Amino acid sequence: MTSIPAFESQATLKPLSFDPAKLAGLSERLIRSHWENNYGGSVKALATVKKQLAEALANKDTPAFIYNDLKREHLLRTGSVVFHECYFDNLGGNGQAGANERKAIADAFGSFDTWETEFRRMGAGLGGGSGWVILGFNVHTRQLENYWLGDHAHGPAATLPILAMDMYEHSYQMDFGAAAAQYIDAFFQNIQWEEVARRIGSAAKA
Amino acid sequence: MTSIPAFESQATLKPLSFDPAKLAGLSERLIRSHWENNYGGSVKALATVKKQLAEALANKDTPAFIYNDLKREHLLRTGSVVFHECYFDNLGGNGQAGANERKAIADAFGSFDTWETEFRRMGAGLGGGSGWVILGFNVHTRQLENYWLGDHAHGPAATLPILAMDMYEHSYQMDFGAAAAQYIDAFFQNIQWEEVARRIGSAAKA
Amino acid sequence: MTSIPAFESQATLKPLSFDPAKLAGLSERLIRSHWENNYGGSVKALATVKKQLAEALANKDTPAFIYNDLKREHLLRTGSVVFHECYFDNLGGNGQAGANERKAIADAFGSFDTWETEFRRMGAGLGGGSGWVILGFNVHTRQLENYWLGDHAHGPAATLPILAMDMYEHSYQMDFGAAAAQYIDAFFQNIQWEEVARRIGSAAKA
Amino acid sequence: MTSIPAFESQATLKPLSFDPAKLAGLSERLIRSHWENNYGGSVKALATVKKQLAEALANKDTPAFIYNDLKREHLLRTGSVVFHECYFDNLGGNGQAGANERKAIADAFGSFDTWETEFRRMGAGLGGGSGWVILGFNVHTRQLENYWLGDHAHGPAATLPILAMDMYEHSYQMDFGAAAAQYIDAFFQNIQWEEVARRIGSAAKA
Repeated sequence: MTSIPAFESQATLKPLSFDPAKLAGLSERLIRSHWENNYGGSVKALATVKKQLAEALANKDTPAFIYNDLKREHLLRTGSVVFHECYFDNLGGNGQAGANERKAIADAFGSFDTWETEFRRMGAGLGGGSGWVILGFNVHTRQLENYWLGDHAHGPAATLPILAMDMYEHSYQMDFGAAAAQYIDAFFQNIQWEEVARRIGSAAKA
Repeated sequence: MTSIPAFESQATLKPLSFDPAKLAGLSERLIRSHWENNYGGSVKALATVKKQLAEALANKDTPAFIYNDLKREHLLRTGSVVFHECYFDNLGGNGQAGANERKAIADAFGSFDTWETEFRRMGAGLGGGSGWVILGFNVHTRQLENYWLGDHAHGPAATLPILAMDMYEHSYQMDFGAAAAQYIDAFFQNIQWEEVARRIGSAAKA
Repeated sequence: MTSIPAFESQATLKPLSFDPAKLAGLSERLIRSHWENNYGGSVKALATVKKQLAEALANKDTPAFIYNDLKREHLLRTGSVVFHECYFDNLGGNGQAGANERKAIADAFGSFDTWETEFRRMGAGLGGGSGWVILGFNVHTRQLENYWLGDHAHGPAATLPILAMDMYEHSYQMDFGAAAAQYIDAFFQNIQWEEVARRIGSAAKA
Repeated sequence: MTSIPAFESQATLKPLSFDPAKLAGLSERLIRSHWENNYGGSVKALATVKKQLAEALANKDTPAFIYNDLKREHLLRTGSVVFHECYFDNLGGNGQAGANERKAIADAFGSFDTWETEFRRMGAGLGGGSGWVILGFNVHTRQLENYWLGDHAHGPAATLPILAMDMYEHSYQMDFGAAAAQYIDAFFQNIQWEEVARRIGSAAKA
């Protein structure tokens, strides 16, 4: 059988780029569970969905609206896999933004503090629910903006993620219970700004 | 007052790249209404949302979850503006895909026909409702895939649109009533494949 | 095979309670297309979904998240069928609210005008998109309120619909194009207030 | 100022109907946090939204689509408050369904086991995400069915909740981490079936 890239997905999980025992204020148990169960669960689910899509597409009798139920799951799981990989890769740092990325963000938001205020407020507003806060570069409008996502199926159009903060409760309940604000503080302390800087540079070329 | 790019948006509508009186099977009245009222309405709405966000961010008393209601509208309207601009720009052609873009699509989907079958089926499944069918290049996974979107807030993660088909009913009801299948046929007859080819080339560099 | 009511649905469309050729400002063509294609489409889709659910439930190998894709479609199509039946049944009148229903609404909203202002504004805000405006009686909170719905899967918890206005574009594009405000005016002219009054009385007993 | 019931909401939380220290397999810490922070947070948020709606409605310059952002939050928070009250009230029992409610459920689903199989499978499919599983009586179709909800804004049309299982991660992460299946087992052990039976009786009269 010929390989069809559009109906394939990764077989393995992308390893953590840092030692989960060494984050500041985020437990190894939380990070390992998040990586293995939530990110890992979506990697497996995406593979299942793609297999079912290939079969359903080959079947002329599949009603189109039923086919789309699988395509919705495809969108959702793709979002989960991609945003989780961005998320883990932008953790493991010391939380200190370098001059270049500070300037890029300040240029877009008026000041670095304005950006941080909005990003944190959006996180606070998602506490107790589900979703993501994404600093992204919109390739179409050429803007660096913060985007609110209510679930994995949401996503800003034509946008490359620069910094991703998971606000699903599996990101913090195990360590902080309902205290999402403490998680947001911990997230900021562990941002891997070198990776953020790399993404800013890469996105600017798109 | 200092300019803050992240809280600004375009003041004007992007003009149509083709003569709306000359599409095959899509009336000038439909295209003009779609461009002016639906795309144009979102351009205006996005400007209003951004202004309200700037004011709300400056107000420490804005509850975070209320702030996020505006950020959700920001996501939704950004999607509407960006996808509509992609949509109109990929219309106005003769519907004949060139060898290069046919090959790129066939490489991803096994065959060009498999791609077209899925893209059309997804459109059919959205008939009578709302949403988009997007052929996109996922910069993170390096895959060319078709994505289902249920509304403007949906969007594939880290993906650049290659071909966008609007399935909101304002795209076809005026000409075809509930006969979405006729609209999909007409859409395919008017695809501007040179623009699609340009986007494929551009996305590959991201 | 034993009948399983939870996995069954109606085989036929509920007939219109009025002559679609005689509404004020809403064409017979629009109403017939809406009833047959959009409402009728959901009646058929719901039957298909229920059949697939029964089969998938009997199969132990169906992944739970794939099963839920069908349950989401079940929720969506149930909403479409129920709200459409409420909608058509609250059309065909002369648009003149009687004293009793005016009083019930005024008691809840401070004045009948306040209710109408909110209901119409919500409709205007849904123009160009999808969704419903529902005046409903919340059996749990014992409140009469207006609810915004963005699609058929949305719905107010524990609430019986009293007056339903469809804001999907198939409700008006054929007659009014993008001019949703004209449709809202026409909707109000055709409200069957006797049916609304009947529902208020019935809901109060729940 | 005249009281306007439609723009008011409850000032206080509905107390737990059971001693949270005495559930089987669900910790007092989990239940108290869930009740106070998640349910309680929505009670406060709903009050805030209603106040802002009353102000925004009185302001003629509020754009309709911005008004609807608040109405979406109104829908979402109403769902959260109502479903949480149903949820806590259907906990605190011994998990043993009585003959009457078993028969009502068996009549609808073919067998009580079929119902339980679907209800549990839907819960499993929601693990790691957000949403609710609702056994509800649809007053319009006169059916007892299980409904999938992806968030608090979702809801089955014209339906009274009979049994509600919260699948937001705040319902279980604190006790079980990502092991949603263990939570579902614990939920079933604590169902207050007398309350379920009461709701079935009450719904049948609607």
